[in-house]
Amino acid sequence: MASALRLLPSTATRLRFRPRLPLSTAASLFSPPSKAVLYDQHGPPDQVLRVEDVPPVELGERGVCVKMLAAPINPSDINRVQGVYPVRPPLPAAVAGYEGVGQVHAVGPAVTRPLSPGDWVIPSPPSFGTWQTYIVKPEDVWHKVRDDVPVEYAATVTVNPLTALRMLQDFVKLKPGDAIVQNGSTSIVGQCVIQLAKVQGIRTINIIRDRPGSEEAKEKLKQLGADEVFTESQLDVKNVKSLLGALPEPALGFNCVGGNAASLILKLLRQGGTMVTYGGMSKKPVIVSTSSFIFKDLSLRGFWLQKWMNSDKSEECRTMIDYLLGLVHEGKLKYEMELTPFSEFNLALDKALGKHGSQPKQLLVGG
Amino acid sequence: MASALRLLPSTATRLRFRPRLPLSTAASLFSPPSKAVLYDQHGPPDQVLRVEDVPPVELGERGVCVKMLAAPINPSDINRVQGVYPVRPPLPAAVAGYEGVGQVHAVGPAVTRPLSPGDWVIPSPPSFGTWQTYIVKPEDVWHKVRDDVPVEYAATVTVNPLTALRMLQDFVKLKPGDAIVQNGSTSIVGQCVIQLAKVQGIRTINIIRDRPGSEEAKEKLKQLGADEVFTESQLDVKNVKSLLGALPEPALGFNCVGGNAASLILKLLRQGGTMVTYGGMSKKPVIVSTSSFIFKDLSLRGFWLQKWMNSDKSEECRTMIDYLLGLVHEGKLKYEMELTPFSEFNLALDKALGKHGSQPKQLLVGG
Repeated sequence: MASALRLLPSTATRLRFRPRLPLSTAASLFSPPSKAVLYDQHGPPDQVLRVEDVPPVELGERGVCVKMLAAPINPSDINRVQGVYPVRPPLPAAVAGYEGVGQVHAVGPAVTRPLSPGDWVIPSPPSFGTWQTYIVKPEDVWHKVRDDVPVEYAATVTVNPLTALRMLQDFVKLKPGDAIVQNGSTSIVGQCVIQLAKVQGIRTINIIRDRPGSEEAKEKLKQLGADEVFTESQLDVKNVKSLLGALPEPALGFNCVGGNAASLILKLLRQGGTMVTYGGMSKKPVIVSTSSFIFKDLSLRGFWLQKWMNSDKSEECRTMIDYLLGLVHEGKLKYEMELTPFSEFNLALDKALGKHGSQPKQLLVGG
Repeated sequence: MASALRLLPSTATRLRFRPRLPLSTAASLFSPPSKAVLYDQHGPPDQVLRVEDVPPVELGERGVCVKMLAAPINPSDINRVQGVYPVRPPLPAAVAGYEGVGQVHAVGPAVTRPLSPGDWVIPSPPSFGTWQTYIVKPEDVWHKVRDDVPVEYAATVTVNPLTALRMLQDFVKLKPGDAIVQNGSTSIVGQCVIQLAKVQGIRTINIIRDRPGSEEAKEKLKQLGADEVFTESQLDVKNVKSLLGALPEPALGFNCVGGNAASLILKLLRQGGTMVTYGGMSKKPVIVSTSSFIFKDLSLRGFWLQKWMNSDKSEECRTMIDYLLGLVHEGKLKYEMELTPFSEFNLALDKALGKHGSQPKQLLVGG
């Protein structure tokens, strides 16, 4: 029986808790006791979320138990808890979190995928419940990833970098030398767009908010590879295209802000161009003139990674994740994050909710 | 020489004016003297347009002289004169008008297309200068059409009905039983959409303005084949889809109004639907929420017939025009127009400009 249970020597001792085995399967395996961030109803995350011990879970024949190493607090995680995101885990006793990386702790006896204790794995496509210390999910859920990159990148590779990569591929056929335009360029997706475009030889025109420190922000983005960075007010001119210099007019734009920042993208796009909306940070709608549609022939589309991933793209998704982690390994894809121990969940949550001012993306680490 | 000049007996006498022939071609043919609606600068049409005698024009080897029978005053004609339309004839001495039907008056000696005096022809794709009594253009410009339909339909078949037909074909693959939604449904394009959709078995959900007489307007549209007609205020409810009854949620919407009337289309469209903007009668922009793009996955596009026709579609264009005039002949495509003699151009213009209240589309008829 123990032979079916491949354990990492270092974590073997953790499996000390052994619940009473069901009569039918003497060999049943269970996860260690775990802590999880749970909620029973939707509402303000700092009111409805609670950290709680959860009992061991039976692995079953094809289950894999993973010790979570790191999981981010993404804005969409917050929205799910608030109940304003269209796809959410069922209540009550929902475990929060959607992406993250863990280490295989134990595998069920009938698991056929090459997953061994110690391997780094991510749920791919992501699935609910990554804010807990041990997770049991069927083997198909887990994608083994390289373990020679910083843990925080493996934990966050799906939601933000993959969004950037898909948006560069799915809407307009771009070739080296072409340009794209985006707003919200300092966001992690924005930073990924700059770096992934650069790898493909695509130039980026970046729009950021007017704010104290915008010069430093420009400098940072240029160091990542941005070709041009403008504040919104800089683009508030009649002949905006004169600002582009030798850059070609962009055929593709990414909008995660809305309002004026979206209008600036529409202004910069070339005839027949496409704007893809993937966020609305300003909470303002997109406003489009009739002539933008008729005479400028612009197309406006939306992108939602979760929908893309749910449409039978799991193999493609995994291939892209491997590609992205390869870029991380080569130093071609980077962004700022802050690691906070899982035991200090409430501090990380407060930071993610903006209670401590502007903060990097928060990651929960360790069990 | 006269043998090269195939004349309609009834119009032969009109060729009485014979300017001095150039020395090089003794056989040169010229159009009769003509009257044209001209402008030298952009501005308010009732100020800058003038009706003037224009001298005869040489046909050349492959020119065809056409006696215009009828030409509409379309809103885009007004916009060209105002200078607010992106594609306009060069100034000065531009002849207004863009579509219409005429009768072949004379053909040049090297014309190879089967065009004979008396044939009905339309410029296809349309070209500038239809508001004159005789027009000379190269043979390729002219498309022979059936002459057993009312002249006003042959004169207007391109700009409005073809727009409706293309929009039903170019954006979403529809099958019988599917539904579309549109605003501005009482416009001629709107009426054509209803009738052309009906021919294809496609159901239509129509939005009209709230105004006195809206009940009569609804009745008229239903007689044309509209499945549902709502005023904007009727759709100002929370669960708008409950109003659709047994109709499927529409995958395609046509917007020629903007503002709230466009928002109602977005509200009625199904997940993944497309809204095509082809006009902006309210002069208000289209306003779109972020979630419409991300979670509802709506696409927003534009349609401009002139761009479509200029992209090497002339044969396809002519086939569709023949199809549309066939429907007119069968009584399956109809809309209201008012015929005004060319000699009363200023009255027709004033009506088109709305100086006499709401009026049907104005057509200039006769030479």
